[in-house]
Amino acid sequence: MKIAVMGFGTVGSGVVEVLTKNNDVIVKSSLGQAMDLGYILDIRDFPGSPYEKYFTKNFNDIISDPEVKIVVETMGGVTFAYDYVKQALLSGRSVVTSNKQLVAEKGYELLQIADKKNVNFMFEASVGGGIPIIAPLTECLTANRIEEVAGILNGTTNYILTQMIDNGVDFSQALKEAQDLGYAEKDPTSDIEGYDACRKICILASLCYGKHIYPEDVSTEGIKDVTLNDVAYAKKCGCQIKLIGSSKPVEGGHITASVAPAFIKDSSILADVHDVFNAIMVRGDALGDVVFYGRGAGKMPTASAVVADVIDCAKHLLRKRAFGWGAPEKGFVVSDDYLTSRMYFRAETNDYSLSEKEIKDKFPEAEILSDGSLNEIAFMTDAGNIGELKNKAESVENMNIKMTMRLMNLA
Amino acid sequence: MKIAVMGFGTVGSGVVEVLTKNNDVIVKSSLGQAMDLGYILDIRDFPGSPYEKYFTKNFNDIISDPEVKIVVETMGGVTFAYDYVKQALLSGRSVVTSNKQLVAEKGYELLQIADKKNVNFMFEASVGGGIPIIAPLTECLTANRIEEVAGILNGTTNYILTQMIDNGVDFSQALKEAQDLGYAEKDPTSDIEGYDACRKICILASLCYGKHIYPEDVSTEGIKDVTLNDVAYAKKCGCQIKLIGSSKPVEGGHITASVAPAFIKDSSILADVHDVFNAIMVRGDALGDVVFYGRGAGKMPTASAVVADVIDCAKHLLRKRAFGWGAPEKGFVVSDDYLTSRMYFRAETNDYSLSEKEIKDKFPEAEILSDGSLNEIAFMTDAGNIGELKNKAESVENMNIKMTMRLMNLA
Repeated sequence: MKIAVMGFGTVGSGVVEVLTKNNDVIVKSSLGQAMDLGYILDIRDFPGSPYEKYFTKNFNDIISDPEVKIVVETMGGVTFAYDYVKQALLSGRSVVTSNKQLVAEKGYELLQIADKKNVNFMFEASVGGGIPIIAPLTECLTANRIEEVAGILNGTTNYILTQMIDNGVDFSQALKEAQDLGYAEKDPTSDIEGYDACRKICILASLCYGKHIYPEDVSTEGIKDVTLNDVAYAKKCGCQIKLIGSSKPVEGGHITASVAPAFIKDSSILADVHDVFNAIMVRGDALGDVVFYGRGAGKMPTASAVVADVIDCAKHLLRKRAFGWGAPEKGFVVSDDYLTSRMYFRAETNDYSLSEKEIKDKFPEAEILSDGSLNEIAFMTDAGNIGELKNKAESVENMNIKMTMRLMNLA
Repeated sequence: MKIAVMGFGTVGSGVVEVLTKNNDVIVKSSLGQAMDLGYILDIRDFPGSPYEKYFTKNFNDIISDPEVKIVVETMGGVTFAYDYVKQALLSGRSVVTSNKQLVAEKGYELLQIADKKNVNFMFEASVGGGIPIIAPLTECLTANRIEEVAGILNGTTNYILTQMIDNGVDFSQALKEAQDLGYAEKDPTSDIEGYDACRKICILASLCYGKHIYPEDVSTEGIKDVTLNDVAYAKKCGCQIKLIGSSKPVEGGHITASVAPAFIKDSSILADVHDVFNAIMVRGDALGDVVFYGRGAGKMPTASAVVADVIDCAKHLLRKRAFGWGAPEKGFVVSDDYLTSRMYFRAETNDYSLSEKEIKDKFPEAEILSDGSLNEIAFMTDAGNIGELKNKAESVENMNIKMTMRLMNLA
């Protein structure tokens, strides 16, 4: 059969490379079927490319070739990608994508179409790059109630935080380094504001809890307000600051889902995830905690996940997998404020001793982390309802809260 | 459909508990099919058990009931387990097992029978307990050439080594603690001699490299000769000692496969795997390193993996998966001596200065780790062919080598 690749950017060119370089392995994994590159769709020209003969600018070349059974979408965005993926599914072809935005925003609709047409819509590469997570979740944890899914889902921000923690570099300097190294884009908004991690936790939560979760329903906070002082206060608590996407069920059939920096205990394996690496923890009621670790991005790792999905499609061309999730439901996602946690607060104050006294009054068990040498006070509370702890902290007169983080108990 | 569970020990009773407690989740994951416990086979009596009506001592009750479609084997050993599993497969039923000894010793034959009868023989729980590893290997890494598979595959020995490293407890004391805590059995041979890890690396290597690997082909060394001095010398090298099962391809279409204690750099995520936890690294040519982490044993985690396989069987009752491996091949596994590595040696000596001089002569780049205060000398070599390094170390007169370990570069 022929495989069409739409979008010859970083991931798409990696997919083409893996498909050709490892073709023997891929054919063997696909039960001996021929797995040939058919087309590469891209509006750009790539003169001199070894794949020159495969290029087309016309989507109809793909859709009108009956030998094309599987379409790979690595274009990104939701405009053309959405249109082409929809058409490909409607034409009875399986589609594999690495496009997390597409899955997070249009996943339910596309899964419905795939279902109706009895083909596959797969997206292992959309979360954690090459790290196997979608398949293990949907095939290996099927006997469990998922009590929590949480992880370091964005390599760029983890690189920046690692620089801040290990080398005492401040946020803007660490961001500049990440950009120089090619880990962060010129416009780093999507990474540092947490939007990228948000799309990934949407996909994971949708899979774990069975309803489509939209990015706009997920409280999303990035890392640009994290200071070196926060890092130092975290160390005092035996913790490291990580940007965590997380979701868990709460009473009443609801779930929480959020992206925010958090305190992670040094004893957690997630505290040992450095630089651009990702790690995803899943907590099952029977299984306990398992963690999946690896490079969460990059050309070849991501391509490896895309091609694995292509092979899976080739093995089950006409099979409807018990894979995906149901319709979105208004009010399904509720605020993290309903959870119980220890909480970290950092606040500005003009009168340190007065603030300290008030905090000790209102939070008798709190640990004060700051030493009074600055106009800021930081403290860690005992475990309590997050919403109540926040309200109480805000009611402390004479101080202005600048940063709030959960202390999370992860694997 | 009905599911029969053979063996009501730790894992078997966990399977029964998960099957009943999470039945709603399991039915949903099984595309809505009824998934009912049919029989529990055990020679023992369990008076008052809530599952009393399911017990039988007669395997024929299972094999003669046409409603039983899936048989779970959690008996252990290879005598009855092998006979019953074979009969169940021959009768056209899928079989799920957690029995690593059975898979490592009889896997090829049983996979062949399953193939012929167009049913499934599955064993996710045989490696890493509840950690998803078999399915990710066979479904998510299919586009890769596997350059190495290596891991901490035995929780008991990892607990003992953690005690030695973190608390300075010596081997025999740490073993006693592990026994008191129920992590090690009264007869701990299978764990501490590395036999348990050996069966697991056999299964992983068979899957990764396509031919059945027998335990007797795998050089297997346990941890009982690891001393607190070894632990201290490792620390000097920025390393921790872990019992590692590993396998990788070498020239000529061969592979190596072994179990032995090794030096692991502190910067490796595997160095952060403590206590009874397991972690398995897979290195793919496209993917790079991924690590799967969790509890490698225990009633409920292992049961979770068994039941996930049961669900997979229920979804694909008659499908022959592209899953398994080919026939064993004499001489396929070669010695680790063909690999390149830095090597650690500890030796007895009656003349420390003389030994030190000879070592410096023969290994000019070596780092001497011992301080001369004892009748032993320890050193770390530069990278070289392991066989040659060993020969050279043995040729040093005046010393008697007591311990040899690789310094492994893992994720």
